[in-house]
Amino acid sequence: MENENHVNHGEVVNDIENEAPLDGNGNRRYWSEFPERNMSYTGPLLVKRTNTTSQIAIVGANLSPIESLDYEMFENEIFKQDWRSRGKIQIFQYVILKWGFAALIGLGTGLLGFFSNIAVENIAGFKLLLVSDLMYKQRYILAFVALAGCNICLAAAAASLCAFIAPAAAGSGIPEVKAYLNGIDAHSILAPSTLFVKVFGSILGVSAGFVVGKEGPMVHTGACIASLLGQGGSRKYHLTWNWLRYFKNDRDRRDMITCGAAAGVAAAFRAPVGGVLFALEEAASWWRSALLWRTFFTTAVVAIVLRAGIQYCATGKCGLFGEGGLIMYDVSTANVTYRGADILAVLLLGTLGGVLGSIYNYLVDKVVRTYSILNEKGPGFKILIVVTIAFLTSCCAYGLPWLATCIPCPDDPSVSCPTVYESGNYKNFHCPAGHYNDLASLFLNTNDDAIRNLFSTRTFKEFHISSLFIFFVTIYFLGVVTYGIAVPSGLFIPVILAGAAYGRLVGRLFESISKLDTGLYALLGAASFLGGTMRMTVSLCVILLELTNDLLLLPLVMLVLLISKSVADSFNKGVYDQILKIKGLPYMEAHAEPYMRNLVARDVVTGPLVTFSGIERVGNILHILRTTGHNGFPVIDEPPFSDAPELCGLVLRSHLLVLLKGKNFSKDKVLTNQNILQRLSALDFAKAGSGKGIKLEDLDIEEEEMDMYVDLHPISNASPYTVVETMSLAKAAILFRQLGLRHMCVVPKSQHRPPVVGILTRHDFMEEHVHELYPNLKPHRWTE
Amino acid sequence: MENENHVNHGEVVNDIENEAPLDGNGNRRYWSEFPERNMSYTGPLLVKRTNTTSQIAIVGANLSPIESLDYEMFENEIFKQDWRSRGKIQIFQYVILKWGFAALIGLGTGLLGFFSNIAVENIAGFKLLLVSDLMYKQRYILAFVALAGCNICLAAAAASLCAFIAPAAAGSGIPEVKAYLNGIDAHSILAPSTLFVKVFGSILGVSAGFVVGKEGPMVHTGACIASLLGQGGSRKYHLTWNWLRYFKNDRDRRDMITCGAAAGVAAAFRAPVGGVLFALEEAASWWRSALLWRTFFTTAVVAIVLRAGIQYCATGKCGLFGEGGLIMYDVSTANVTYRGADILAVLLLGTLGGVLGSIYNYLVDKVVRTYSILNEKGPGFKILIVVTIAFLTSCCAYGLPWLATCIPCPDDPSVSCPTVYESGNYKNFHCPAGHYNDLASLFLNTNDDAIRNLFSTRTFKEFHISSLFIFFVTIYFLGVVTYGIAVPSGLFIPVILAGAAYGRLVGRLFESISKLDTGLYALLGAASFLGGTMRMTVSLCVILLELTNDLLLLPLVMLVLLISKSVADSFNKGVYDQILKIKGLPYMEAHAEPYMRNLVARDVVTGPLVTFSGIERVGNILHILRTTGHNGFPVIDEPPFSDAPELCGLVLRSHLLVLLKGKNFSKDKVLTNQNILQRLSALDFAKAGSGKGIKLEDLDIEEEEMDMYVDLHPISNASPYTVVETMSLAKAAILFRQLGLRHMCVVPKSQHRPPVVGILTRHDFMEEHVHELYPNLKPHRWTE
Repeated sequence: MENENHVNHGEVVNDIENEAPLDGNGNRRYWSEFPERNMSYTGPLLVKRTNTTSQIAIVGANLSPIESLDYEMFENEIFKQDWRSRGKIQIFQYVILKWGFAALIGLGTGLLGFFSNIAVENIAGFKLLLVSDLMYKQRYILAFVALAGCNICLAAAAASLCAFIAPAAAGSGIPEVKAYLNGIDAHSILAPSTLFVKVFGSILGVSAGFVVGKEGPMVHTGACIASLLGQGGSRKYHLTWNWLRYFKNDRDRRDMITCGAAAGVAAAFRAPVGGVLFALEEAASWWRSALLWRTFFTTAVVAIVLRAGIQYCATGKCGLFGEGGLIMYDVSTANVTYRGADILAVLLLGTLGGVLGSIYNYLVDKVVRTYSILNEKGPGFKILIVVTIAFLTSCCAYGLPWLATCIPCPDDPSVSCPTVYESGNYKNFHCPAGHYNDLASLFLNTNDDAIRNLFSTRTFKEFHISSLFIFFVTIYFLGVVTYGIAVPSGLFIPVILAGAAYGRLVGRLFESISKLDTGLYALLGAASFLGGTMRMTVSLCVILLELTNDLLLLPLVMLVLLISKSVADSFNKGVYDQILKIKGLPYMEAHAEPYMRNLVARDVVTGPLVTFSGIERVGNILHILRTTGHNGFPVIDEPPFSDAPELCGLVLRSHLLVLLKGKNFSKDKVLTNQNILQRLSALDFAKAGSGKGIKLEDLDIEEEEMDMYVDLHPISNASPYTVVETMSLAKAAILFRQLGLRHMCVVPKSQHRPPVVGILTRHDFMEEHVHELYPNLKPHRWTE
Repeated sequence: MENENHVNHGEVVNDIENEAPLDGNGNRRYWSEFPERNMSYTGPLLVKRTNTTSQIAIVGANLSPIESLDYEMFENEIFKQDWRSRGKIQIFQYVILKWGFAALIGLGTGLLGFFSNIAVENIAGFKLLLVSDLMYKQRYILAFVALAGCNICLAAAAASLCAFIAPAAAGSGIPEVKAYLNGIDAHSILAPSTLFVKVFGSILGVSAGFVVGKEGPMVHTGACIASLLGQGGSRKYHLTWNWLRYFKNDRDRRDMITCGAAAGVAAAFRAPVGGVLFALEEAASWWRSALLWRTFFTTAVVAIVLRAGIQYCATGKCGLFGEGGLIMYDVSTANVTYRGADILAVLLLGTLGGVLGSIYNYLVDKVVRTYSILNEKGPGFKILIVVTIAFLTSCCAYGLPWLATCIPCPDDPSVSCPTVYESGNYKNFHCPAGHYNDLASLFLNTNDDAIRNLFSTRTFKEFHISSLFIFFVTIYFLGVVTYGIAVPSGLFIPVILAGAAYGRLVGRLFESISKLDTGLYALLGAASFLGGTMRMTVSLCVILLELTNDLLLLPLVMLVLLISKSVADSFNKGVYDQILKIKGLPYMEAHAEPYMRNLVARDVVTGPLVTFSGIERVGNILHILRTTGHNGFPVIDEPPFSDAPELCGLVLRSHLLVLLKGKNFSKDKVLTNQNILQRLSALDFAKAGSGKGIKLEDLDIEEEEMDMYVDLHPISNASPYTVVETMSLAKAAILFRQLGLRHMCVVPKSQHRPPVVGILTRHDFMEEHVHELYPNLKPHRWTE
């Protein structure tokens, strides 16, 4: 076997470095270069890119190693014995747990979402009150110092959490969750420390007045909660429960994290149906009807938790947290009637929104790449950047309202105008009594309140055209430069803010020909921007409807989303896909690229293969585990156990380690199936949480045991998915992706050859890998 | 090759008949017995079931033969050459067509939906006016004669259409569309005649006062329109277009029919988002993000068409068609506040709804089985049954209101009470002026108006408890006995009607402890019944929200749906799944059954195999095509074309027929690749519409050509998906289902054996087939 040895960990890296021309961007961390040549890396490595056409960089340092997840049913003897032994009680336990966990995920995400809302409203509200008070006393410079000081302190705190405790918590989190659900497990992404920093970092970051949202982070939070439950306690501290064993596999964890992502959106937008659709359309890579139902249940729990929380807070026990309601930006009071001219205006709105959205994505891409280089210089640098942006944001928020003219308050006696000691509408700023400053009403408010102001209906002339323009441009660029700094930062709110300002601006410009309310224009503007950046359709549509409680707008919202998405798609990819690419996560698309039709499976198999015999020498196994990083090995039966060499299955590194730890060795080459089946149970082979499980160093094999034999049959997956070497790469990729595989065996076409030609992993289907092997292959695009 | 000949068409049937014990139900047509042993049947055959545990019958006679669809990318040389040759213009054509067709499907479905609404409102409205008029004149017997006469005439017309023109148009149509999207093509299901009968039969049936809806039929209509477009014109009449060639494959047709199904729901309920979700949750078996978007576009077109139509009709040009609106049953005027007691009442409502829903399914199942036996006695019998049910319905509608007491009209001056010359609320019936008959207001209205009455909010005491009870019981049982008769009949409306009556009844019963509006109770009751019968969640939730325009009810609707579905699922399957089962359609579930883990692929391969050589004698091919019904054959390369026999691909019957018709024969056994590639194009091999394409009889092979050879390589799919014979059947089934395969080659594990062991088709994974082979296998249920 040894003569067929594969490239090992060190060799891969050398290999790449030897080939690699400099790409002008210096050294870069690149994940997808070595995700799953079956190795579990102990840390990211500096490599140079071999392929200059696609630029790959990574955001943040200290990123954890990544591994593929395994969604295939691993059918070895031990698991099959376990399945057969499961009776009615076990099924009952499983079903109870499945739904119980879904409820817990909903409960946890709902509570955390509610908590962070209360915290933000109180912290930011206190800050804004302080500034209002100082402005009222005409101590203008002190007011600026207070604003900037608060913002910088909060920002620095958020950045420190991120930089020192959990770098993985920076950014939106949606791309990482999307990657996880695609089968990419980056260990620290869903760790408890990440959850902690995500929640508190997000509260601090949003309170600091950054143009960021807490929506993306909420999705990440939901996924983290689901992941923690899915780990199933700690065996180390004996904090586990026998019932949980059924969940110790990647399939059930994937389902739970899908529920978590949906719960996150549901909690962030108070949109339970929108949450389900978001999980379905954007987050998840695999889906089935049963999961739809469970996700729906989770978001229903979130809705109930939020409703209960709001009812509790309605009694005034939550400090500055306002009344709220299950619907955030209610526009249902507006009269929705539209004519031809309105439709034309809306078409224009959608088109422009698509263009602006794709430009936004382009700029975000550039900025994130720049930050990712700067961020690698160390935590201090990260914090410095965050503080700089916080200062810039404070300057804009405080400085720009001076440009606005004071507007007399509206006649409506039901609103208090201007508000001095309250957050919300009609900020006074430097204006005399009875007047308000419209720019300050947007800038010196929380983001939620600013959106509520922009969406407000029947307040046609509330904002000047010039103010809307200034606000739009500022938010657009602040949003771009803020994403990628080391704080948890959602993208939804910046996009909705900029889009709403843009929409309201267009509404004001078309006021002579269009009868649609400017509040509705703001909503449609937000839709067009969301469509232009995120490129979702149905889920955004439903989220917006649930946010604004107006079903009559549905046809217009659909129209705007379709147009803006179509326009933007002709320029570049959605913002989450871009970030996935920047992070170098080996994301597998659901379709095969056309160039793959010109290759066969054999063409991308690289390096020699390491296989084991059905009954293998312990020393051999240890040596191979030590010298290679592979996570999966074909097992070959040879005479006398079969007539000719034949593939009898596939073993995983993690299972081998458990088997070796169990020391079921025999002196001779004999089948010891029954013995092993009795001594080891499925629970021993349960998949450990990310980065956990038995390590090679934990083994304690004595010298005389090295020459003994161990029977690999009971732990071999006897039904690995295989492809013939001449199978078109496109079809192999679809098989791999659709079934959520981790390893796929390539078998020879003709007889009289070894029974396995190679193993394909996620890595082998990546465009970078294929282009490295075949630099001249032109990606010919034929839309499927 | 011949020595390996497979069982042929006749033999399969004999085989079954020999083994088959009588099952007590007499002879039955059974589709899933021989769907796809690769045969295209010329007609259904009478066979006896071998397995008495699962009772299989079929609804309606004259059902067409079925075939599997092929969603795999068929990668042969000819198609690959075509893909390579596609440039920017072709991609542009394809994209334009893709979106153009989506728009056309939306347009067509929207227009037909609107047309049938207008037709029903006018026909039924005229009938009801006539009855009202006669009642007003106190000519009670004549009124009954008029009602029963109209109903019977309309019913007989609908039944005649169904019985003589398109038997496949009977019933809901949703199960058939679901089966098509799962890969089962029953030829006449989506034919133009079916479309015609579905539209007009549905109009007549609904007008005849049956407790049926036009929602299921609308889904079928949408799918038929999509299918007609997908056939791509007629080559026979030169009515085709070169552009359309890209759509002549099952994958693109599947996508279009998914759009059609969504458009149907969108048109029926005026619920565009609900339509998308319905297609996703209930109809489609395969889904991807790109399709979500296209479906969304289609339903947006439907929404726009409906809105335009309603605006046109608002001017009074549509006869008795009322004002309507984009929302059908608006309950948004109700005050939605609820407390603990309301929640308890709602929980009870959901539980009971689930129980009643599953009993409904049980009864429908029994009734449909009975009708299916009666319907086989001929068209006359079918019409007789329909007329009987029409008479029964008329008797109930006319007779039962006499039991109700007259109620004084409400004080509200804005409603006209009682209405005599109008359809809608507050029917007078036999009551004196200033009074109305509440049962007549439900029975002697169109189903839509009855639902609107039941959903009406702030009309707390409009209906007596006794009237609601009578109406509920009557509709429940009428709904059960009406489904399965030979008219197009949707299930949504009967279920909503019964559910709304039940909900309103519960609301009245709980009036002392619950403050929720009775209209909202009716809505929740409808939700609980829908959940209990259809077992959908997210889509029903969104459809109900779009129907009723009240997002504040969302948490309650979610709760009710979850409870009723959970309760009902513990008793039996959803109604559409039951009907699929009754019709014997070989539907493949997304998950593998647990007993499959105990079998391997080899275990279910039956009969010897027919294969072809890479270069095969024409006479051989003809003989095999004539004597077997197979649709796919492995192609084996043998020396001198390879070192040892090896699998070089898979050919389809339809492609073989094209090749033979092209007569690219050679005298000797030589490769003639290039020649064939030049003379035949991908267009020649485009998949014909259901039941079309070249037939064996169309071939005109002369005697001397029989001994010539033809090269099968250019038309062989060189990358068929294969499984090793020892692959667990569960995993093979998942591979087959997930990738939408039609044929799957089973290859040997050990060497020195023929390169293919057998072929698996949809049939081989069916529970019936497996149980026939292994009668003692216990289905051990372990929920995945």
